[in-house]
Amino acid sequence: MRKILVIGSGKSASYLIKYLLDHSEKENLLIIVGDINFSHAKKLTNNHQNAQAIMLDVFDKQSRESAIQNADIVVSMLPARFHIEVAKDCITFNKNMVTASYVSDEMHALDKAAKDKGLVFMNEIGVDPGIDHMSAMKVIDKIRAKGGKMLLFESFTGGLVAPESDNNLWNYKFTWNPRNVVVAGQGGAAKFLQEGTYKYIPYNRLFRRTEFLDVEGYGRFEAYANRDSLKYQSVYGLENIKTLYRGTMRRVGFSRAWNMFVQLGMTDDSYTIEDSENMSYRDFVNSFLPYSPTDSVELKFRYQLKIDQDDIIWDKLIELDLFSSKKMVELKQATPAQILQKILMDSWALAEDDKDMIVMYHKFGYELDGKKHQIDSTMVTIGEDDTYTAMSKTVGLPVAIATLAVLNKTITTPGVQIPITKEVYGPILEELEKYDITFKEHDVPYLGYNQLHV
Amino acid sequence: MRKILVIGSGKSASYLIKYLLDHSEKENLLIIVGDINFSHAKKLTNNHQNAQAIMLDVFDKQSRESAIQNADIVVSMLPARFHIEVAKDCITFNKNMVTASYVSDEMHALDKAAKDKGLVFMNEIGVDPGIDHMSAMKVIDKIRAKGGKMLLFESFTGGLVAPESDNNLWNYKFTWNPRNVVVAGQGGAAKFLQEGTYKYIPYNRLFRRTEFLDVEGYGRFEAYANRDSLKYQSVYGLENIKTLYRGTMRRVGFSRAWNMFVQLGMTDDSYTIEDSENMSYRDFVNSFLPYSPTDSVELKFRYQLKIDQDDIIWDKLIELDLFSSKKMVELKQATPAQILQKILMDSWALAEDDKDMIVMYHKFGYELDGKKHQIDSTMVTIGEDDTYTAMSKTVGLPVAIATLAVLNKTITTPGVQIPITKEVYGPILEELEKYDITFKEHDVPYLGYNQLHV
Repeated sequence: MRKILVIGSGKSASYLIKYLLDHSEKENLLIIVGDINFSHAKKLTNNHQNAQAIMLDVFDKQSRESAIQNADIVVSMLPARFHIEVAKDCITFNKNMVTASYVSDEMHALDKAAKDKGLVFMNEIGVDPGIDHMSAMKVIDKIRAKGGKMLLFESFTGGLVAPESDNNLWNYKFTWNPRNVVVAGQGGAAKFLQEGTYKYIPYNRLFRRTEFLDVEGYGRFEAYANRDSLKYQSVYGLENIKTLYRGTMRRVGFSRAWNMFVQLGMTDDSYTIEDSENMSYRDFVNSFLPYSPTDSVELKFRYQLKIDQDDIIWDKLIELDLFSSKKMVELKQATPAQILQKILMDSWALAEDDKDMIVMYHKFGYELDGKKHQIDSTMVTIGEDDTYTAMSKTVGLPVAIATLAVLNKTITTPGVQIPITKEVYGPILEELEKYDITFKEHDVPYLGYNQLHV
Repeated sequence: MRKILVIGSGKSASYLIKYLLDHSEKENLLIIVGDINFSHAKKLTNNHQNAQAIMLDVFDKQSRESAIQNADIVVSMLPARFHIEVAKDCITFNKNMVTASYVSDEMHALDKAAKDKGLVFMNEIGVDPGIDHMSAMKVIDKIRAKGGKMLLFESFTGGLVAPESDNNLWNYKFTWNPRNVVVAGQGGAAKFLQEGTYKYIPYNRLFRRTEFLDVEGYGRFEAYANRDSLKYQSVYGLENIKTLYRGTMRRVGFSRAWNMFVQLGMTDDSYTIEDSENMSYRDFVNSFLPYSPTDSVELKFRYQLKIDQDDIIWDKLIELDLFSSKKMVELKQATPAQILQKILMDSWALAEDDKDMIVMYHKFGYELDGKKHQIDSTMVTIGEDDTYTAMSKTVGLPVAIATLAVLNKTITTPGVQIPITKEVYGPILEELEKYDITFKEHDVPYLGYNQLHV
């Protein structure tokens, strides 16, 4: 039997392991799932005859090396910062490797060694990054094949709650690492290209410079700009493009409300709040407002942020119990961001039978025979429950399909790479369609930035 | 003759050297002024018979050591980051030392060595820090001496343009390092104490949380919070104080207008703007605004920041030529902050006959015999011209007076210290009065935060 070692059996591994097990008979596979938490691994292997759960501490050199040496291919579903030791072992023991994570500088540095040994190190093959690369390159390659010249590329992804489980005023629940949501957009100005001009948005304006997107059957969304929209400009071959923008999708109204936290400083992760463990939620809010011997925290909040009496934004705060003097922070030496995360997790946790949703929206503007055209491409995937989520499906399935393709030598180009070639995205996107991960493409008028369409 | 070595003959050295030369006959002094720019040093020594200008590169170990070895006391007026090599030599060669700069961690680390050798290393004895320490501690000690308990201490300083030279809409000119003005308030939330509660203001709110201050004869000012108001809490012995706030003074309206730059991201110093050298001022502004094929930069700016048609804030921008398509940035790979600094320097440079102004305002709240009291203490110093500025006077005179006092052994406590003891501030404040650097103290009602006084 051919052995696939999957390291890490966290949130994103459920569909990945299920896919591999479903193919294990026909493909003659043994799936070895290693996790520092053995019961996690055990749960996902589910006593399948072609599966084996092992206890694996990635920092224990000996057991890590022996597990990798014993495998025919290695999938790392660990947090991104832990991949590198696994990757080095894969070089040593001549194993191909697959991850869903961004290519780190350390990973990138292994490119030559992987090529020299003819090894495939496939990365960024989850959802974002992953499905976004593949679905975008498919359309870009198609446009180029017919002689079109790319003018505009905008790409948006959102991990959200499905409409049937959407029961709070923010239209949002945590379907992934909550910390990333709280600190999203921090660390520098967002940078992108609009009609040939570089544009910059500072963090404090980011959530007020959104744009709207309509997805057929799912209504209206909004998007705010990612930090670096230009990251894949040369990788995608878009050096001369006029407009290049990548963003994160939310339901309409989320960003305007989130901006309240940004403005008051509640998302700051750079310092700790004095005596945080003994604060109520109300005390926490009050620490960002001027002292008054008489005025309420509520009125000071409304006044500072100029919130009208009948603005629904206010009800979003009330829903979070933000002004509660009974609910306690209970975190020692916590940053504002950590405290806010705790408050939000009270309200935004995915319930056991809640369904999540991944939404993706690409816009491709191009010129062909002197005319301007646009293709909009959208994808929506809904999860089953809080284990078999849309997030784990869209991350895990492409990883699993790619793993089998590398094992079966249909993906063979060696080196540290991401899924942007037809060799890779062609068969993977085709197979994803069988699992209802499909893109709808529409030809739409190319309107550019003439917002009034006059 | 007793030799005083002054290293650095920049902006803040004019009054310092003048004071020492004026006292050189009576005190039997030789003033040696060392600068990497010899003509600078030469200009300030002005062929005085008790002065000597030398070319001194502080990074040239041999000449630095020989100059220090030859002196009886060393004054470093270099930028703060260059003090440490001088300080180490002073330890080696048993010389006392005076600086106007904040005590760095490296300087602080020399405390024991200085004490062991009985050397006085006096720091923070300029204006802010310096005169603020001395004038505050004088009043705090007086309140304590009569049995009062400190409830509140607020302290504000501003380096501004004098009323007679105040001819722009911002009521502001650069009287010191322009870069520090552009990036002021960055690097973390402002933190302070109000009535026993810690308060935090993020950068993006800092310039909208100002308070007003009236100075007799000079009208109304505003102040925004310094980064860390609590820095001197234990040094001043104010561990149990209820309110502790330090701020920077501007003329009314400055901060609200400055906030426009903050909101758009123009003060960011963390990344460089693409192709900055070929941008006009207008292009620079436009890079922070959404693309439009038709709308003007002006209207986009007004719309983004919600500036009413009749708001004077707009005229402040026009005065800076901010929307000029002719004036060019001309700086290569510049950060937004560097570009903004250049734009402002066009308009805010101090002319040769302009006068600057240093304003200081302290509030001391205390309880005595069950009653609450408050003392407000203010100081205003006006400069003579763009060389003999109020800034160089208020920085240089206390440094000069302290230097002579250490030389004459009226200040003797050894170690790395700042001027907070009566031994130091008493005689210095007394002598500063002869130079019209005087504080006016007023007993005022203690109102606390009951803003309506009802």
